Amino acid sequence: MTEKDAAFETRLRDTASAVESLLVSLLSDAPLSGEITRPARLMAAMRHGSLNGGKRLRPFLVVETARLLGGSPAAALRVGTALECLHCYSLIHDDLPAMDDDDLRRGQPTVHKAYDEATAILAGDSLLTYAFDIIAAQETDVPDAARAELVLALARAAGAGGMAGGQALDLAAENEAPDEAGIMTLQAMKTGALLRFACEAGAIIAGSPLKDRERLQAFGRTIGLAFQLADDLLDVTSDTATLGKAAGKDAGRGKGTLVALHGVAWAEARLEALTVEALELLSPYGEAADVLREAARFVAGRSR
Amino acid sequence: MTEKDAAFETRLRDTASAVESLLVSLLSDAPLSGEITRPARLMAAMRHGSLNGGKRLRPFLVVETARLLGGSPAAALRVGTALECLHCYSLIHDDLPAMDDDDLRRGQPTVHKAYDEATAILAGDSLLTYAFDIIAAQETDVPDAARAELVLALARAAGAGGMAGGQALDLAAENEAPDEAGIMTLQAMKTGALLRFACEAGAIIAGSPLKDRERLQAFGRTIGLAFQLADDLLDVTSDTATLGKAAGKDAGRGKGTLVALHGVAWAEARLEALTVEALELLSPYGEAADVLREAARFVAGRSR
Repeated sequence: MTEKDAAFETRLRDTASAVESLLVSLLSDAPLSGEITRPARLMAAMRHGSLNGGKRLRPFLVVETARLLGGSPAAALRVGTALECLHCYSLIHDDLPAMDDDDLRRGQPTVHKAYDEATAILAGDSLLTYAFDIIAAQETDVPDAARAELVLALARAAGAGGMAGGQALDLAAENEAPDEAGIMTLQAMKTGALLRFACEAGAIIAGSPLKDRERLQAFGRTIGLAFQLADDLLDVTSDTATLGKAAGKDAGRGKGTLVALHGVAWAEARLEALTVEALELLSPYGEAADVLREAARFVAGRSR
Repeated sequence: MTEKDAAFETRLRDTASAVESLLVSLLSDAPLSGEITRPARLMAAMRHGSLNGGKRLRPFLVVETARLLGGSPAAALRVGTALECLHCYSLIHDDLPAMDDDDLRRGQPTVHKAYDEATAILAGDSLLTYAFDIIAAQETDVPDAARAELVLALARAAGAGGMAGGQALDLAAENEAPDEAGIMTLQAMKTGALLRFACEAGAIIAGSPLKDRERLQAFGRTIGLAFQLADDLLDVTSDTATLGKAAGKDAGRGKGTLVALHGVAWAEARLEALTVEALELLSPYGEAADVLREAARFVAGRSR
């Protein structure tokens, strides 16, 4: 492991642990001002669905882009944690019987298995709602305009024109395989939009000029594409290696991926090109962006 | 019909029609800036779940409290419409098989019946998300601080410590009947919180001093209690009259109501007392509050 790798790993772990601590405190049973009471079982389901030892990649990107541009670390941690609540809501709802119907996540029963379906729906709804609460609260120490802007950018990334719409397209893809453009749109929405928001959020928190905001947004979009490609490659290569199947779960379920369309060699070359593109986007920032460079390599390297 | 009744009815109808028009435009298939694309079927499901001819009482309360305190009518219409999106999300999710399992709403198939369960979950998620988008967007012409404050107040009213938590308590009440305090908490959360927000929102939009905000909040809380009591009374009296049953649907399903606990006569007297209380809260505003007075009588009169 190089020195840069080690620095990256340490920061990733430190941010994950700060996010976990903040989640524990935010998801306590004690109601906040303006709340009436917090039903214990619902809160437990929300904790079950969010305190599950994830890598917290999205909060990490918020924290590191904010650090690069000189934004408040405390505000970035709160916005990152809000984003993680929203990400976890999407996993809870995606796992539901009517959606992907998964019983396990990270080796633990999914929320509807550990509790019940109605509680899982409400826990997801509540985590989604809470994401906007956390950003809009005074404790997120950025100017009022930035808080409103963060809410808006997150809502656009998460809603019908972003992540939720991507999940709708993904469900439709089980019946009718999308073409290449359709796959790109689906992936940009389902997984790309939140990663793009994560990187853009740092620039909003820092109050950076538009050119930085657009550059970080492009960086987020690029690593989002790499993230999905690495995921699709991982699916094929791990299945082939460990299960002896020629194609992975998603392809097997009739969902088109770029790997299925163009093959592994093409995908690996494309992943390399996306990584180079992501690194180039960071060139104006010099050494200060080294941790984000490692993050880009980390995202692309998930298939190795 | 008195002159005041007529003025009230006209305004209620006019606001409902303005909300419908804004919803039609907001829920078009054309993506907004920052959105990738809007899947047609998902958007159709969102329209199905929100363009259903409701009275739009919550937006009406936002518009009228803002008018009373001198807030921007256009901003109030947007915030009211955002609140209606959020209300409609709650109906879509409440109707799901895992929740109340209803096939019909206002004589039309519920969203999961007209489309499918996954689409209903995502349509609800997207309407909830969109509520915060609509408030946070620049088009909601209030100061940045007010936009952030509106997002926060709505999130608190709608989340685990408000409406969604109330629905969780309501589901639990099917197994274990709550006592009087439990019923009050459940109702304050499930139906009260959004009505309270509706009235408070007008004061935030108008940038009113804290004393007005607290007064309107108390007005919203009081008519929220009246709303639920009128609903419970309607349930008992209409069932008794039309179905010949001694108790209504909610009581029959093991859900306690104050009517079941204390009887119809008590409930009618309590409803009258709540109405008087609501009217008294408006006394500092003189004739300017006449439409809100009619609104309080309208809410209480739903059982007659």
